[in-house]
Amino acid sequence: MSAEPVAIVLLSGGLDSATTLAIARAAGYATVALSFRYGQRHAIELDAARAIADAFGVREHKIAELDLRTFGGSALTDDIEVPKDRPLDAAEVPVTYVPARNTIFLAHALALAEVRDARDIFIGVNAVDFSGYPDCRPEYIAAFERMAALATRAGVKGNPVRIHTPLIELRKTEIIRRGLELGVDYGLTRSCYDPDADGHACGHCDSCQIRLAAFAELGRTDPAPYS
Amino acid sequence: MSAEPVAIVLLSGGLDSATTLAIARAAGYATVALSFRYGQRHAIELDAARAIADAFGVREHKIAELDLRTFGGSALTDDIEVPKDRPLDAAEVPVTYVPARNTIFLAHALALAEVRDARDIFIGVNAVDFSGYPDCRPEYIAAFERMAALATRAGVKGNPVRIHTPLIELRKTEIIRRGLELGVDYGLTRSCYDPDADGHACGHCDSCQIRLAAFAELGRTDPAPYS
Repeated sequence: MSAEPVAIVLLSGGLDSATTLAIARAAGYATVALSFRYGQRHAIELDAARAIADAFGVREHKIAELDLRTFGGSALTDDIEVPKDRPLDAAEVPVTYVPARNTIFLAHALALAEVRDARDIFIGVNAVDFSGYPDCRPEYIAAFERMAALATRAGVKGNPVRIHTPLIELRKTEIIRRGLELGVDYGLTRSCYDPDADGHACGHCDSCQIRLAAFAELGRTDPAPYS
Repeated sequence: MSAEPVAIVLLSGGLDSATTLAIARAAGYATVALSFRYGQRHAIELDAARAIADAFGVREHKIAELDLRTFGGSALTDDIEVPKDRPLDAAEVPVTYVPARNTIFLAHALALAEVRDARDIFIGVNAVDFSGYPDCRPEYIAAFERMAALATRAGVKGNPVRIHTPLIELRKTEIIRRGLELGVDYGLTRSCYDPDADGHACGHCDSCQIRLAAFAELGRTDPAPYS
């Protein structure tokens, strides 16, 4: 075992979580990546998560099984159409919102942190280009951290976990610039809500729109495959 | 659909959650019971949960799949020996503690509440005979509720969920007395941490000890089967 502190990093396979992993590694953490097979319509993102975890030399990559389809209620898990080319300034919470997803993901990260004696959890939520999800806001993360301090054996003993959100105040262009500095290969990442059977991104869902606009603004070509 | 408000009730198949379901029904809620197959060493409690859900005429009984064994760290999911006949006033968090279990369970309840338009979640945690688990304390529940209000679409729209803990301040004898008034058949419930292959309770783990002592104090025989 190295003497590096251990951090749990939520790793979806997307651009944000890959950048978050790079930031955690650069900050000197040994990392345990945590991904979920949660009934998402496309499991291609798990392949991406594996490739990214390998590229960054994580200590361990856990894939936890969930079944959020049991509950339904989202275009990401159900047969609801993913909206294409919609204006991104819409005030509504979009249909791609998965109910309580970050709470469920962070709850699992908290369990894993406890059994791995980790005091740090990293999650790539973003409140700027956050696409209207309530559980990506700073006040939500702060409330989760307060709850977590009371939830666990380590918390009770005075060692609460910290939830790190290094991207939360960054624009997408800033995230990509930071990731490129840290050696993230964005060709490995997958962000699309509605990829085709070969894993090619659609280019038109909220997630693709935000990503493509950011690469364009940086004068770069997104290296991920598009259909 | 009835006009009754809908509540999500976490139902483990044990004495406390059965009583909690009875209380939610008596309070006029239509109920959606939520149980978990989470890699527990004995799945007999899910059979108990089904029988209890039927007895109380729940509207729906969801069994969500999890795999807490992936994480390890508890005598309830791993090959760690369940302690027998230990003094119940021990200050330590016991090895039967499953890391972050109530946080994971409540996170799922929150997701289900959102997709069923329920504003109420019932959980049978107990801070008196609580066997040393950090995530059974009132301050933990209050912190979860504050987090939940920020986590979901309904919360953002000003309809946060309430977490009801009707047993939290009750002694085990008071819980049983209340349940008997409400018609709970405790013969259907299973509380043992280490039952035999036929589902008979061991009589010696923390959970059995607390339960047997309470029935004895009430001058009653516990109707559940013991080996």
